[in-house]
Amino acid sequence: MADLRTQDIKNPVDVAEYLFKRLHEVGVRSVHGLPGDYNLVALDYIKPAGLHWVGNCNELNAGYASDGYARVKGISAIVTTFGVGELSAVNAIAGAYSEYVPVVHIVGYPTTAAQKNGLLLHHTLGNGDFNVFSKMSTQISCAVSMLNHQHEAATLIDNAIRECILQSRPVYIALPTDMVQKKIDGDRLRTPLDLSYPPNDPEKEDYVVDVVLKYLHAANNPVILVDACAIRHRALKETHEFIERSGIPVFVAPMGKGAVNETLPNYCGVYAGDGSNKGVRERVESADLVISIGAIKSDFNTAGFTYRVSQLNTIDFHSYAVKVRYSEYPGVRMNGVLKKVTEKLGKLNIEHGPKPDNEIPNEEIKSPEPTITQAWFWPRLGQWLQPKDVVITETGTANFGIWETRFPDDVIAISQVLWGSIGYATGACQGAALAAKEMGIKRTILFTGDGSFQLTAQEVSTMLRNKLNPIIFVICNNGYTIERFIHGMEDSYNDVQEWKYKDLPAAFGASTDEYQTYRVETKKEVEELFMDKEFSSGDNQKLRFVELVMPWDDAPAALKYTAEAAARTNAASSDS
Amino acid sequence: MADLRTQDIKNPVDVAEYLFKRLHEVGVRSVHGLPGDYNLVALDYIKPAGLHWVGNCNELNAGYASDGYARVKGISAIVTTFGVGELSAVNAIAGAYSEYVPVVHIVGYPTTAAQKNGLLLHHTLGNGDFNVFSKMSTQISCAVSMLNHQHEAATLIDNAIRECILQSRPVYIALPTDMVQKKIDGDRLRTPLDLSYPPNDPEKEDYVVDVVLKYLHAANNPVILVDACAIRHRALKETHEFIERSGIPVFVAPMGKGAVNETLPNYCGVYAGDGSNKGVRERVESADLVISIGAIKSDFNTAGFTYRVSQLNTIDFHSYAVKVRYSEYPGVRMNGVLKKVTEKLGKLNIEHGPKPDNEIPNEEIKSPEPTITQAWFWPRLGQWLQPKDVVITETGTANFGIWETRFPDDVIAISQVLWGSIGYATGACQGAALAAKEMGIKRTILFTGDGSFQLTAQEVSTMLRNKLNPIIFVICNNGYTIERFIHGMEDSYNDVQEWKYKDLPAAFGASTDEYQTYRVETKKEVEELFMDKEFSSGDNQKLRFVELVMPWDDAPAALKYTAEAAARTNAASSDS
Repeated sequence: MADLRTQDIKNPVDVAEYLFKRLHEVGVRSVHGLPGDYNLVALDYIKPAGLHWVGNCNELNAGYASDGYARVKGISAIVTTFGVGELSAVNAIAGAYSEYVPVVHIVGYPTTAAQKNGLLLHHTLGNGDFNVFSKMSTQISCAVSMLNHQHEAATLIDNAIRECILQSRPVYIALPTDMVQKKIDGDRLRTPLDLSYPPNDPEKEDYVVDVVLKYLHAANNPVILVDACAIRHRALKETHEFIERSGIPVFVAPMGKGAVNETLPNYCGVYAGDGSNKGVRERVESADLVISIGAIKSDFNTAGFTYRVSQLNTIDFHSYAVKVRYSEYPGVRMNGVLKKVTEKLGKLNIEHGPKPDNEIPNEEIKSPEPTITQAWFWPRLGQWLQPKDVVITETGTANFGIWETRFPDDVIAISQVLWGSIGYATGACQGAALAAKEMGIKRTILFTGDGSFQLTAQEVSTMLRNKLNPIIFVICNNGYTIERFIHGMEDSYNDVQEWKYKDLPAAFGASTDEYQTYRVETKKEVEELFMDKEFSSGDNQKLRFVELVMPWDDAPAALKYTAEAAARTNAASSDS
Repeated sequence: MADLRTQDIKNPVDVAEYLFKRLHEVGVRSVHGLPGDYNLVALDYIKPAGLHWVGNCNELNAGYASDGYARVKGISAIVTTFGVGELSAVNAIAGAYSEYVPVVHIVGYPTTAAQKNGLLLHHTLGNGDFNVFSKMSTQISCAVSMLNHQHEAATLIDNAIRECILQSRPVYIALPTDMVQKKIDGDRLRTPLDLSYPPNDPEKEDYVVDVVLKYLHAANNPVILVDACAIRHRALKETHEFIERSGIPVFVAPMGKGAVNETLPNYCGVYAGDGSNKGVRERVESADLVISIGAIKSDFNTAGFTYRVSQLNTIDFHSYAVKVRYSEYPGVRMNGVLKKVTEKLGKLNIEHGPKPDNEIPNEEIKSPEPTITQAWFWPRLGQWLQPKDVVITETGTANFGIWETRFPDDVIAISQVLWGSIGYATGACQGAALAAKEMGIKRTILFTGDGSFQLTAQEVSTMLRNKLNPIIFVICNNGYTIERFIHGMEDSYNDVQEWKYKDLPAAFGASTDEYQTYRVETKKEVEELFMDKEFSSGDNQKLRFVELVMPWDDAPAALKYTAEAAARTNAASSDS
């Protein structure tokens, strides 16, 4: 088919211009990624569309950063190049798929002519197959749009961005070099994308609302349990109203940390089965009704499948269905139901049980040891945090320790409990800090381990290049502690090379006024650091880098429980 | 099916023991990778099998390192964990597939029971599908062995390792945690794997030999052109005998660099179409017969498809076929044919044309400028190299510059001309240096660019951890130079953050006796460095790290040609 001629289009724009303008429309302001010859011409369109080019150090890190950016901003974009670039990002994109994070992955492709002729180009497998990488991405994307034809490019772009947001998962857009400057209808851009969720069928929704209310009114001792999908599928507004209006005791799952205002009188803590602290566990497990919102009952989110909550006592709210005891209502999205339930709530029977407080355990306070223990640090951290902080925790001690940290209001918590790819947090911190800066949020705070930090350390360079000023805590405890607790406590394969972590910002080119480093080895030094107003303000333009020294064989209690459960699962033999 | 009971097996060994012993048998001595909870128990078997655990900083780097190790040692192994670990390595494995490098990728899987029950485990997409990642790897592996059943484990392991070597491509072995310690028949290990290529059909082979000899004797002016597959498919012995016995002028393609003894009187240089130097181009293109051994005619290997050699004047030797002019002989492997052709060679007509010399161009010698130019450096390097050096060049200026470097005998050259993933070279250097050390080779030398180095910089830490002492040159020229020459010469997306590269070994924990750093900014300083005996010896145990400063807008002539061709290809519009 012949090219559409420019004179046939009233308000022609280039395909790349259209794409980046649409991304701007839905809230993207920065684009992550790396240059590569199949995407170079497209990169010329980023700045004119009002977007900032981040320029990461490698594509995996760029992928993690995009994930972090999207968790703060609602959506993100990453540009890679065919084959080599996109495959380096696959782990990060799979993580975003697993954890419902909307990332638009734009891949610069060889020309449509080269594809058709099966040219033996660099960045191919040498077999003339140009579809092999997009096929891989099909498994980890909710839409794959191959922009190989001018006449459908706008539709495919619109569809990809809409699916990305509505399904809250990555999409893949293949942009061949010869399509970048093809002209398409710019008038489409005058109509913003419709990003609203399709409403529930009203009759069906009302029916479900009545069922929910019936069980709610019958309960003597209900609790609410909020999890990740309430955040990722944008039901927080409805959730908050329900929590505040009802006054029902509310708990979060680890992946739901940050979803609920933890200063509310009815906030009671983190529930994760046997990994919960005792008060929490007893309170949740003695409830006669659990209203579960957005649950993802994965092993690490349930301390090894140790929920002791009967489905007979449970109402599940999801993006795709509501489930009351064993009655399922597919196709009924939680948002509308929660809203109506709140409106029609009436009087409830609520038992106000004991409330766990996330204070530092007494034995830790009394201990004369100067060592910074996990049991001491995480509750203490809560007192230092501020409203609106963005807090990122790495898979490992930090991700479990944070269960014991009571947040101020409006904290955005970022972690990867289900996908659990170590190295994620440092990359995600770059993206989150950039998004935070764009939104006027002062402090982005990272907690990672030394082993994990080594995977993606160079993203500190990208933070510096982009003038970001996160506060980075590297927990120096000589290796992969989470693995030690699963298997090989003292085995050398769980060791890492001992770096001089504090020396990295300077090696990455930071001038002395761009960064400051710290090392804390005792509780007293932590206290002093937290009292340091300059350190804590987040006001100035310095990146803060802290070596937080903790014992190699110490871990949060929740991690120990979960690791023991993981070791048991790993040893369980199949009966086949 | 019930487990095989141990008492039913005469000489029981654990599955993991069997696997690692087989890897030892075929020449592996070190295993790359990272720990992860689904592979931890398997890692316990590495040391008892006589293998060394490398412990990389991340999986992509470990994959590149495995590729580098295999190119020196003949085969390599990498262990990753399900999902997160394996996907991080996918780009490196795809590169090994593309470039015919035999890498055994062992992935620690959740238990067979967890897979069967579709458990919602960490490192999954949360959808109960445990096959999604192995499906991705199917596209970039010549065998995928899922060790889900005890009774077939040994057969699958043997098959995977054999295919890996015979096809010279990666294989994927999935090892569930509950299979690691299952007992299998250890007596199989007494019979070594048969790794010989199936011989050609003798009658067919003799027929092809006669055809080849007919054209060879009819030629007045033949040349030999050796390329990558002669190395990768293990035809170097036959190739060398043919070259030496025949005396025919011999050239290498860029990917074949290092395949031929460049001190031979009939060695004439690197041919890559328009990217070749003039003498080489004229000599090859005026030949009346080109004997092409192991060709991969990719864009970067032919300076943008600019071979001007007619198929009517060509005999192609491949691992899977021989092709004489347009007559194809499928299923006839080059090795046997080459051997017999050499034996029956007789007298040939050979024209000894002008021989390019790879000396430093006169204008560079005369130039009073102190600046280190690409045109000056690469020929000069040839005089400093030593026999048996392992030389790794990154995709970018180094990979094209090396065309002008005349090697001493027996140099192993490592580059990734077809796959071309930047960051590869630093990772590959770690693996190559380790393999070289195991083989008693003194010097492993890396040339990478600053932009490329940033992708995988932390593998310098792994080199230190493993007491390796490569000589690392980081070409400091402020960004992605190869991209600049394709598009966006002065655009900021081709810039990188300016690091203090020399400070990294110390930040990565090297003690002062473990490393030495250098910075050379002028030709004179390069000369002095090359004269420094301690620097050049490779004898001692220090890692050497050189900042080699070159102008940001300078590139080898071959890169300029190739980049222009790539830009043209990228702009070429499809007629559809």
